[in-house]
Amino acid sequence: MAAKIDTPDWVRDAVFYQIFPDRFARSEKLVKPRNLEGWEHPPTAHGFKGGDLEGVLEHLDYLQELGINALYFCPIFWSSANHRYHTYDYYQVDPLLGGNRAFERLLAECKRRGIRVVLDGVFNHASRGFFQFNDILENGVHSPWLDWFTVHGWPLSPYDDSKPANYACWWGLPALPKFRTETPAVREFLWGVASHWVDQGIDGWRLDVPNEIDDDSFWQEFRRRVRKKNRECYIVGEIWVDARRWLQGDMFDAVMNYLWTSSVLGFCLKSWDRSLTKGMQYGTKEPLDARAFQLAMDQVLKLYPEAISSVQLNLLDSHDTPRVSTLCQGDRTGLELATLIQMTFPGAPCIYYGDEIGLTGGRDPDCRKAFPWEESAWDKELLAIFRELIALRHRHKCLRRGDYAPLSASGEFFVYSRTLKNEKLVVAVNAGREAERCTLELSGLERIYGQGTLAGTTLEQPPRSGSVFKAR
Amino acid sequence: MAAKIDTPDWVRDAVFYQIFPDRFARSEKLVKPRNLEGWEHPPTAHGFKGGDLEGVLEHLDYLQELGINALYFCPIFWSSANHRYHTYDYYQVDPLLGGNRAFERLLAECKRRGIRVVLDGVFNHASRGFFQFNDILENGVHSPWLDWFTVHGWPLSPYDDSKPANYACWWGLPALPKFRTETPAVREFLWGVASHWVDQGIDGWRLDVPNEIDDDSFWQEFRRRVRKKNRECYIVGEIWVDARRWLQGDMFDAVMNYLWTSSVLGFCLKSWDRSLTKGMQYGTKEPLDARAFQLAMDQVLKLYPEAISSVQLNLLDSHDTPRVSTLCQGDRTGLELATLIQMTFPGAPCIYYGDEIGLTGGRDPDCRKAFPWEESAWDKELLAIFRELIALRHRHKCLRRGDYAPLSASGEFFVYSRTLKNEKLVVAVNAGREAERCTLELSGLERIYGQGTLAGTTLEQPPRSGSVFKAR
Repeated sequence: MAAKIDTPDWVRDAVFYQIFPDRFARSEKLVKPRNLEGWEHPPTAHGFKGGDLEGVLEHLDYLQELGINALYFCPIFWSSANHRYHTYDYYQVDPLLGGNRAFERLLAECKRRGIRVVLDGVFNHASRGFFQFNDILENGVHSPWLDWFTVHGWPLSPYDDSKPANYACWWGLPALPKFRTETPAVREFLWGVASHWVDQGIDGWRLDVPNEIDDDSFWQEFRRRVRKKNRECYIVGEIWVDARRWLQGDMFDAVMNYLWTSSVLGFCLKSWDRSLTKGMQYGTKEPLDARAFQLAMDQVLKLYPEAISSVQLNLLDSHDTPRVSTLCQGDRTGLELATLIQMTFPGAPCIYYGDEIGLTGGRDPDCRKAFPWEESAWDKELLAIFRELIALRHRHKCLRRGDYAPLSASGEFFVYSRTLKNEKLVVAVNAGREAERCTLELSGLERIYGQGTLAGTTLEQPPRSGSVFKAR
Repeated sequence: MAAKIDTPDWVRDAVFYQIFPDRFARSEKLVKPRNLEGWEHPPTAHGFKGGDLEGVLEHLDYLQELGINALYFCPIFWSSANHRYHTYDYYQVDPLLGGNRAFERLLAECKRRGIRVVLDGVFNHASRGFFQFNDILENGVHSPWLDWFTVHGWPLSPYDDSKPANYACWWGLPALPKFRTETPAVREFLWGVASHWVDQGIDGWRLDVPNEIDDDSFWQEFRRRVRKKNRECYIVGEIWVDARRWLQGDMFDAVMNYLWTSSVLGFCLKSWDRSLTKGMQYGTKEPLDARAFQLAMDQVLKLYPEAISSVQLNLLDSHDTPRVSTLCQGDRTGLELATLIQMTFPGAPCIYYGDEIGLTGGRDPDCRKAFPWEESAWDKELLAIFRELIALRHRHKCLRRGDYAPLSASGEFFVYSRTLKNEKLVVAVNAGREAERCTLELSGLERIYGQGTLAGTTLEQPPRSGSVFKAR
């Protein structure tokens, strides 16, 4: 089975940056509506700040200097929500973002620079404003599109908070009517949308809540359709848990690797205000020591074939979680250690915009603050660390394609290697509050990152720090 | 003032056909949704029958054989209403109609055949599904588009029939939120839509309820914008009453000439079931005899400069009125007489689809039946009369551009002439139940239509009939 699995090779070399389009950057080129929230104001559930794709275009230099070569965009299609997960028109980039024209410009410039672009595909549900649903609201049983959604009772009560939604919707939220994907016309529509944007030149789809479309044949055909347009199209599902069902080679290439995240945070951060992650499908209950972490990493790697693991989307946080900076509660070392692991692990790292300059944020919508472009607001030391670690990944092919092997795990000290042909790197992470030592059966190591020291075969690592060594 | 009035010359030669797109013709080429109303079933307020623009394309031969050289389409943009007056997206032709692609094909073929195309512009109000309004429903005071509509109270109650609409809407109908046209962005949007479609090649705009945008500067700029794209663009407003305010040369070229309709029906039909026209802004209270009709025609012609009158849209019925065939209550002669006057009068005739084959229909939605394409259902004699009268208009330039003069009006017998240089036609209409006679100060008349006879200068016309004579 594993031999058959065909995942896009380019993802192995990718370092992703996740952009929340309303919040990353705002261009002066575009005329904006008047009623926008201040850029610096704390985000609200319903306010728009007016970030746009021309703004992204204007900051590609910044992203390339950081080392980014792939962008994952939260939804960009026309939507009445600031996060744009409530799609209004799947064929139009939101006019506030600059419309299809700005996206074409951005995509062309990304191609020129060798930056890949992955879009967020929200195919499970639409919005109350989506045409075919709106048509049912307007025409009831007479709507030609009646079979696009599932109605439980008439009249529909779409905006009446005092009544539960009487139609199928995501998590009972009336704002998110769920597509009836059994209907052939709906399937064709969604596959058509997916193919269209691949045709326009995107490099992949991140799929929102794909488990809610509980129908393997839907995703199998989805894969066939988009792969027909682009053999290297990356399909990454938002599955927070064991995703073996979807990672057999016939549906997705990867998932958002929250299983991995969960353990990395458990090891690097140990603890945080648990109310911040309450009810989320990630976040370990207990802090992990080095052995527990080793086991957890083994588990997550063994769940899937290597062709999958090497293209998993390894993220530390996202628009759906609190930011790691905030979980760290003032001790930045947790984020540094986690980023070191992220940049030296199998799977494509994905940085949530602003993490690299120390942007903070609790639960949604706080984790969706606008990027502060005045550099005085930046944690420049942190930015330097991000740049260095990303550069390290790009410089060493074994970090992207090499075999992973744990070397030592005791107390809070975990050491592993990445090996490809005759290139080998050793990564040492001390998550504890004391200096740690271990003995390695390797000689001639040269330190290329961090403050760890070698005395013969004994490696010593200062507290709350990590190092990378290169085998000669 | 009159000298300055610049109306499009081509309209003087136009014979329009008004098409209700969901009901005219349905092509087998397009895939349809399943939940459509039967083509032959009586129309309902909310059902769709699936007529489309490919269907129109397939029947252009039929229309040209009838003598049609201009089409006025009820709205074709994306909409959740079968009449499409509730616009969802002004830049997209409704997918059910075949989308932008079908419209491009139709427009190109119409250009090739010399058929003009006028679209229905609904700029006063949008729909509950229109993006900027939907955004306000979704985001309330946080919506970036808050200033596009006028909100009277929160929360909005768009679909709650038990509460009056708490936002500005057309005639208090919550389905039709009214644009706030004072907002500069809204003005620019609407002017942009109008310019865009003229740019795409349309020949004119019929404006829905333009009096509701009570702002001359809006329509003056509207005219400047569309005329800049096409100097010959025809602008015809839906104004049912005295329209002098809009017909000074700086706003519209013409209006839907219901003032004229009203008198023509009063003279030709005399009476009908008044409940059919109750509450409408047309339909005389009293039947008109020939003198009253002459006065009414003089009045309507004197209201406006000649440059306007010669391009007025002269209609007998529309999607907003009962059909004349139904008002006739079984006596088709009323429709024949009215059509004779329509085809020989200053102003562009506009035939409501199906009138020519005797399609019946009371008040909306009954007047919006599907066109029966089985010829066995047609009144072929009536169709022959339509063809003959339209051909007459095309053959004689004086009917399109000549001076109008009443010659005789007594009892139910009305006679008038159209004269252009040395071409003169005389039209005689006997709306009464008895044969009528009159003496004309003209000699050498040759009958070219109808059963009227001449004995010297005495013209005799059988009851309920009309004739046309040509002066030698």
